[in-house]
Amino acid sequence: MTDQRALVLLSGGQDSTTCLFWAIDHFGKNAVATLTFDYGQQHRIELDAARRIAAYAGVGNTILPIDTFAALGGNSLLDSSIPVPVSVGTDASGLPNTFVPGRNLVFLTYAAAYAWQRDIRHLVAGVAQTDYSGYPDCREETILALQRCLQLGMERNFRIHTPLMHRSKRETVQLAVSLGALGALGMSHSCYNGKRPPCGSCPACQLRAKGFAEAGIEDPLLTA
Amino acid sequence: MTDQRALVLLSGGQDSTTCLFWAIDHFGKNAVATLTFDYGQQHRIELDAARRIAAYAGVGNTILPIDTFAALGGNSLLDSSIPVPVSVGTDASGLPNTFVPGRNLVFLTYAAAYAWQRDIRHLVAGVAQTDYSGYPDCREETILALQRCLQLGMERNFRIHTPLMHRSKRETVQLAVSLGALGALGMSHSCYNGKRPPCGSCPACQLRAKGFAEAGIEDPLLTA
Repeated sequence: MTDQRALVLLSGGQDSTTCLFWAIDHFGKNAVATLTFDYGQQHRIELDAARRIAAYAGVGNTILPIDTFAALGGNSLLDSSIPVPVSVGTDASGLPNTFVPGRNLVFLTYAAAYAWQRDIRHLVAGVAQTDYSGYPDCREETILALQRCLQLGMERNFRIHTPLMHRSKRETVQLAVSLGALGALGMSHSCYNGKRPPCGSCPACQLRAKGFAEAGIEDPLLTA
Repeated sequence: MTDQRALVLLSGGQDSTTCLFWAIDHFGKNAVATLTFDYGQQHRIELDAARRIAAYAGVGNTILPIDTFAALGGNSLLDSSIPVPVSVGTDASGLPNTFVPGRNLVFLTYAAAYAWQRDIRHLVAGVAQTDYSGYPDCREETILALQRCLQLGMERNFRIHTPLMHRSKRETVQLAVSLGALGALGMSHSCYNGKRPPCGSCPACQLRAKGFAEAGIEDPLLTA
């Protein structure tokens, strides 16, 4: 069933970890592989989290290097001279200063190239437009345009699955619980400041805490 | 006139060199910059050609590193263990074995990210679907889908200009002549085997020779 294999983009964060368990539930563990990008993120702890989570779930993991975003520079997730915002906020352009332009588009295009070489046509990404981080490349309209572009540009009938697209953070936590992913979430990493235990005050920590609080579930990361 | 600046993707080949002169004609020399990708191509002579051509034209040039395609591997332009085809041909998938999946999509997405950071909204690329190399990411339908995707994903009204899209190789040579780009074409590089003077037998050399022959123009590269 070549056609039914899936590649999950696994960052090591809460959303992609939940998507991995969604993909295992949907396609079966033996049909799922994961791809992680080493793109010069300041916090290498994300890569370690991705590796640990894939091993815990019993699926393969490939880490692909991307040096180009670091060369482009200009945002606070890659450039230590630009501070991470203390709260969810925007810069003069109306976008968060953690926005890396094109990041998800490049990630998904590389994932499609990797999948193309292996005859995989299902891609799974943890992007969401509900309770989202303010990044326009997480929206469904963008992802659908990209899916069309990848289908045409590689002559392969790719399908990009985004199981979290219309879920709130609360619903994403509930989905993770229903999929038995809570243990893996204890290994995941969200904090923009690279802290473990997490700083609790950066936008990523705040969004994560909101979801667990609203779901009435204790975040296993905080008790790990 | 921030809105009217343009970024040309300059590979150092015949088509992108012609596009550079089209952009200078269209936007004015002071409104044009060029971007070149160092993506592990076997023949560094392409990068030297791009630098020389930009300097000759009097416009800026930035070279951006992309290590990811080399890490992906699996095609003859990047992997010296896979031979370059001796003629224009296809592999079992129906695509040339020089196809690097996603290459133009990634190039244009990075170009958009670079342009986004500099408030440039016009991108110029030398892709063409007439007399084309068999790459599906050169077709107009793909480029239009990508343009939409970049507009949505970066919230910027990008316009991807493809002046060669519907031109044959003969018409591209005629355009270059009319734009005064013939001198620069003598510095450009096309040969897949990295030869200068060109090997004359690889698919890129054959396509280039066909265009000059049909236009009745002597290729300045052969007399340089």
